[in-house]
Amino acid sequence: MTPRIVRRIAELREEVAGYRRQQPEAARVGLIPTMGYLHEGHASLIRRSAQENGLTVLSIFVNPLQFGPNEDYNRYPRDEGRDIALASASGANVVFIPTEEEMYPEPIRTTVSVSGLTDRLCGASRPGHFDGVATIVSKLFHIVLPDHAYFGLKDAQQVAVVARMTRDLNLPIDIVPCMTVREIDGLALSSRNIYLNHEERSQALVLSQSLSQVPGWIEDGMTEAELVVRIRGKIRSQPLADIEYAEVLTFPDLTQPSADRPLRDSKEPLLVALAVRFGKTRLIDNVLLFPSEVK
Amino acid sequence: MTPRIVRRIAELREEVAGYRRQQPEAARVGLIPTMGYLHEGHASLIRRSAQENGLTVLSIFVNPLQFGPNEDYNRYPRDEGRDIALASASGANVVFIPTEEEMYPEPIRTTVSVSGLTDRLCGASRPGHFDGVATIVSKLFHIVLPDHAYFGLKDAQQVAVVARMTRDLNLPIDIVPCMTVREIDGLALSSRNIYLNHEERSQALVLSQSLSQVPGWIEDGMTEAELVVRIRGKIRSQPLADIEYAEVLTFPDLTQPSADRPLRDSKEPLLVALAVRFGKTRLIDNVLLFPSEVK
Repeated sequence: MTPRIVRRIAELREEVAGYRRQQPEAARVGLIPTMGYLHEGHASLIRRSAQENGLTVLSIFVNPLQFGPNEDYNRYPRDEGRDIALASASGANVVFIPTEEEMYPEPIRTTVSVSGLTDRLCGASRPGHFDGVATIVSKLFHIVLPDHAYFGLKDAQQVAVVARMTRDLNLPIDIVPCMTVREIDGLALSSRNIYLNHEERSQALVLSQSLSQVPGWIEDGMTEAELVVRIRGKIRSQPLADIEYAEVLTFPDLTQPSADRPLRDSKEPLLVALAVRFGKTRLIDNVLLFPSEVK
Repeated sequence: MTPRIVRRIAELREEVAGYRRQQPEAARVGLIPTMGYLHEGHASLIRRSAQENGLTVLSIFVNPLQFGPNEDYNRYPRDEGRDIALASASGANVVFIPTEEEMYPEPIRTTVSVSGLTDRLCGASRPGHFDGVATIVSKLFHIVLPDHAYFGLKDAQQVAVVARMTRDLNLPIDIVPCMTVREIDGLALSSRNIYLNHEERSQALVLSQSLSQVPGWIEDGMTEAELVVRIRGKIRSQPLADIEYAEVLTFPDLTQPSADRPLRDSKEPLLVALAVRFGKTRLIDNVLLFPSEVK
């Protein structure tokens, strides 16, 4: 069924309220917040929401607040027709595509920020980025008031930030983290992959290839320091790769594990996260591990 | 009817959801967030909510986040029995009295802040105060999801901050500002008035007395600079009065009006706000004016 295309906040609220009135006891609303230019990763979130909810709302909004001054806000890829087709095929009931004027009718003065989780990884290289994310997600949560919200784990730090904000502020919403979807050769899906030329794309496979070795390295008894040296060495074997960060942190609290103890002894889940530039394109990827299950 | 006393977030959500299920079309929930030690000002908010809503929730929580290190968090007055009696007499249906552990089960990392409105008046002398207010109000809003929330205009800056946060973050809640309630001799009601000794209380009347002259002064053509000089002089006539601020700002944007034009020409409402210490006790008071109506 073709989803309803909604561009106004008031109209979206009416859609959600209308659905809830029809299903007073059993209403379940799922939200997938996106910046559009959808790929199979987004499609998997939509399909999961469609399974778990009676109404699935997909939002598409390239949020200027979360882009830095030298980032790709203006050239961020947009293709509304294609997005609507993919949303429709995946089972979205409503696609919310607001204008910037609709989301920011006056300069916004309110900021939602999550300390501690946002000063490392992407937060360190993109100052203000996660304030922008937390603020727009908080707006979308208030507009839709979903029961569930779906986020891809490729943006693992974003999942940690949104989950913490939701808990700290008592938002009555379940945050559902979903597995990263990859191309058949391992490249993590991203709207930014279209920026890559042939050679860059080929060298970018080093991200997933090195991450796939992490469970074995941890099983062998590597410490945090050893693992970081090993993974950086492997990525550097690709001449176009320019490493922004390669880190091992606990998840979801994003604290440093002890540097000199084997990671396999960690009591908490571990996140091994990479941000690497290939030419002008910044890619991120990660693997999330539960060491007790690795052994 | 005796209100239900609720100490758990989950239980409060169940109370509100149960009421909404009973009134699927006509449910209206009002929230009055307070720090307790209720007085007739709070009672007037509760009565107004009881008139306008089918369910009125009063929350009582002395929020540590909004107190500075040298402020009166520990000695802030508390009297649960008296508060419940007053809530009951005024028409509250539910009184929510959470513990600190219930509101902050782990150290909170998320902060909601409103820039611009919070760097002057009480925000200048109480750094972080309005972040604490915006954050706890946002938590209470998410817990109750009221249709209306009631705030007294004695805390005019708080009203401006909460209203702006609500608008910026698309919270589906009407903020209802309510008139300051005064003693028969003019003293604005405040939980902190009990700190005043006889002499301090007597001299504190200078606040309401000087504010009551403001409409006449504005009608006479005073500029902002003239009005500030006049009101400071009047307050200083009381030897115990120690002025923290005496300011004229537009409302609700809290910008400075032109210093050398008569205030009566202002296109925007004006707030004349005072913070004055008497002994150890800091009192605030204000008057809100619509110059076009004064003339």
